[in-house]
Amino acid sequence: MSRLVLRDLALVVTVDAGDSVLRDVSVAVEDGVITEIGEVDPREDDEVVDGRGRLALPGLVNLHTHLPMTLLRGIAEGVDLQGFLERVWAAEGAVMDPATVELGATLGALESLLGGCTTQLDMYFHHEAAHRGAVTAGARHVGGPTFFDGPGPDGLSWDERMAGLRAWPEVLRETGGPEVPVAAMPHATYTNSVEHLAEVASVLRALPDQLVTNDRRLDPILHTHVSENAAENTDLLARFGATPTELLARAGWLRLRIRSLEQPNPQTHEGERVSTGPKVVFGHGVHLSDADRALAAPADVTVAHCPGSNLKLASGALDWQRWRADGIRLGIGTDGCASSNDLDMWQAMRQAAHLAALTSGHPEVDAAQILRAATIDGATALGLEHLVGSIEVGKRADLVLLDLDQPHLTPVHDVPALLVHAAGRGDVTDVLVDGRIVVRERRSTLIDTSDLLDRCRDRARDAAAAAHEVEEA
Amino acid sequence: MSRLVLRDLALVVTVDAGDSVLRDVSVAVEDGVITEIGEVDPREDDEVVDGRGRLALPGLVNLHTHLPMTLLRGIAEGVDLQGFLERVWAAEGAVMDPATVELGATLGALESLLGGCTTQLDMYFHHEAAHRGAVTAGARHVGGPTFFDGPGPDGLSWDERMAGLRAWPEVLRETGGPEVPVAAMPHATYTNSVEHLAEVASVLRALPDQLVTNDRRLDPILHTHVSENAAENTDLLARFGATPTELLARAGWLRLRIRSLEQPNPQTHEGERVSTGPKVVFGHGVHLSDADRALAAPADVTVAHCPGSNLKLASGALDWQRWRADGIRLGIGTDGCASSNDLDMWQAMRQAAHLAALTSGHPEVDAAQILRAATIDGATALGLEHLVGSIEVGKRADLVLLDLDQPHLTPVHDVPALLVHAAGRGDVTDVLVDGRIVVRERRSTLIDTSDLLDRCRDRARDAAAAAHEVEEA
Repeated sequence: MSRLVLRDLALVVTVDAGDSVLRDVSVAVEDGVITEIGEVDPREDDEVVDGRGRLALPGLVNLHTHLPMTLLRGIAEGVDLQGFLERVWAAEGAVMDPATVELGATLGALESLLGGCTTQLDMYFHHEAAHRGAVTAGARHVGGPTFFDGPGPDGLSWDERMAGLRAWPEVLRETGGPEVPVAAMPHATYTNSVEHLAEVASVLRALPDQLVTNDRRLDPILHTHVSENAAENTDLLARFGATPTELLARAGWLRLRIRSLEQPNPQTHEGERVSTGPKVVFGHGVHLSDADRALAAPADVTVAHCPGSNLKLASGALDWQRWRADGIRLGIGTDGCASSNDLDMWQAMRQAAHLAALTSGHPEVDAAQILRAATIDGATALGLEHLVGSIEVGKRADLVLLDLDQPHLTPVHDVPALLVHAAGRGDVTDVLVDGRIVVRERRSTLIDTSDLLDRCRDRARDAAAAAHEVEEA
Repeated sequence: MSRLVLRDLALVVTVDAGDSVLRDVSVAVEDGVITEIGEVDPREDDEVVDGRGRLALPGLVNLHTHLPMTLLRGIAEGVDLQGFLERVWAAEGAVMDPATVELGATLGALESLLGGCTTQLDMYFHHEAAHRGAVTAGARHVGGPTFFDGPGPDGLSWDERMAGLRAWPEVLRETGGPEVPVAAMPHATYTNSVEHLAEVASVLRALPDQLVTNDRRLDPILHTHVSENAAENTDLLARFGATPTELLARAGWLRLRIRSLEQPNPQTHEGERVSTGPKVVFGHGVHLSDADRALAAPADVTVAHCPGSNLKLASGALDWQRWRADGIRLGIGTDGCASSNDLDMWQAMRQAAHLAALTSGHPEVDAAQILRAATIDGATALGLEHLVGSIEVGKRADLVLLDLDQPHLTPVHDVPALLVHAAGRGDVTDVLVDGRIVVRERRSTLIDTSDLLDRCRDRARDAAAAAHEVEEA
């Protein structure tokens, strides 16, 4: 197989441990792995991408989303979380069969990739269908079974859900696609009992070593919605006398983890963490109390901060600086398109930076830190930091090129600030996932986009009719 | 001159008085004026733009910016308003001669136009140069002399500034470009005495009727920074015992105006306001007190809300719903690129919607209202509502086309929500100003972009060196 060379890149924002920014270098990729960064001697059969006027950065990691809901973009405007759930669940129950979920996930993954986001932590029912759809578009898609005490929009019993979890590693392997961990995603503490939450974690811990790939076990992932708005906390305190985080602690989700060094060297594996079971990602985590954060930090929890959704639903404003000071790792997510209303990680980065300034009252927000949250910290949350999240020799090539030759990216006085506060989805020209070019000159190399959009529009009409019925009722 | 027809547009978001959204219509433009909307009978010599798969909306109005500062994008990161001013003024003093101001304004206007923003209220010194630069790019650019008690970055005396104001209507006419009002822009109440502020308003009121064009006098505009952050208020209260708004009232800026009906019919002129002197636009207005708003509303003041800048500098969060309830018209601005760091009005719309939800604690934010703020309400603030700000027969054609055939704009369940919460700068394909196509298929029809970017990069290096010296000192 020939080598791929991204030649003469104007800027490479590595997001390595020293946040190195390289100028006028080439990047070589062989068998999906970054083999050289610097001056690359040409070979006759190299496949070459011209990097002049282009900036390369690691693929963005969307740490909380619901890709199939892309079909519901704009279906529930002007409502809070609870009003939103009521309207959206009705539409979902009516139209979201496996074929529709696969279609929506393909659309969402395609939107993500065209915008430079290569990895998504994606919670949705009919998870096999969602994963197939996202992999079809070329994404490094972290999906997995969802859980509800009741039947949920997919109508499954609890036993069927648990069977789905036990089968998931094998289904994942059969589906193919870039390497990802096994994940299990109970919807929330308000839709899952402590006993059920504990059972999911316990089964995940006992999964056999079929998860070993590339000489290394990928830790499984536990993901759920936590303290998204104040009403959620109030509800759970009234029902159980405990916050969502305290309920997760009761369910055994928050065991002490030996904390990873943030970014191991991908060549020497120096600094790698000791695996001690599932890694936990909280969706939202806006209203964590001091005690909640004290429980979460030693368990190496990552909060997937979703500023766009939190603002639009008036859920509240996460205090970025304080959460970090308390030892909480922060990644960034967009949430689903029914609430936020797109999958634009550039928007989410900028929103996160803005909210960090607003909540702290101080403008000293480090753009490089925001960029790390959207790349290497998200990868670390998913146990993928040895594979992706930065541009370094030895890592898989999940990376993105931007066109710098545009008025709104001129001049460049500060590279991280340019990326967080001026660049955007429209600047992404090429995207590699696992060394494969999945977007070339702003077009998918894998999907017939026009046909996909037509099919999505057709299916969305049925969803709109279902949502409308709820509004009328 | 042949007629221009935008044929078979998928959607036209008119922003007329009823917020009509039209489907599958054509728009005809002759001599800069919209002459037909609907089915347009073809003529042999029509110039035709294919509108299939495109959405048309009025050109966006950026109600507060500093276009030449586009050259300073990212030059002052991590600082508040006062730290920002210190660093930026040094860079400006060192490099911002008229040629550089013209260059920066061209870059800023080009960025604006490519992103669908056709009108800018632009405060910057060397205002003739800034206006020339923006008009070169094709913008409907509202500029005008700036005022400082002291010498300011341009080193002018007060008398020279006043002479510049008296000469401005004639210079404006000579420069050409789309029709705009005369504007005068004292920098702020912390850099201009009440006596000076009063003098500027008085000279503006006495300007002769040379401002009459198209059978209608365009009211002049007074624009200044007002209560941008809490420290500004504290400073002025300590020095003068008055808020910025109270100082402007003392200077005679806040006289009762007969309030305009929001949107006159451009054909019958029904609903037009009675002109009673300068219209006042406050930049920012984040920290207006209850008493300030009670002073501003009867004077028909518009606040140019700049959410991106206010968040990034940690200036505060304007309470959109309350300001509106108190009778303050709100437009939307980006501020300059040294603070916000681009001129993206789509970002600003979405930020405004988000902040409105956050400050009110309620998610019921009307996306159509946000879109009006960024179009017709901005036009009304500038006394241009009979000419632009909506797509209606009889108005000048300032309008923008978006490419709808993209994953992130699919499906369309809610048109205003799509525009405010999912569309962006990268979706703009074509832009008309005053009936002239200034952007065609994402490229300027007037500017050699590559050459401009090269010249801007050269000049920006000198600015960076000057800013760096301040940081070192």
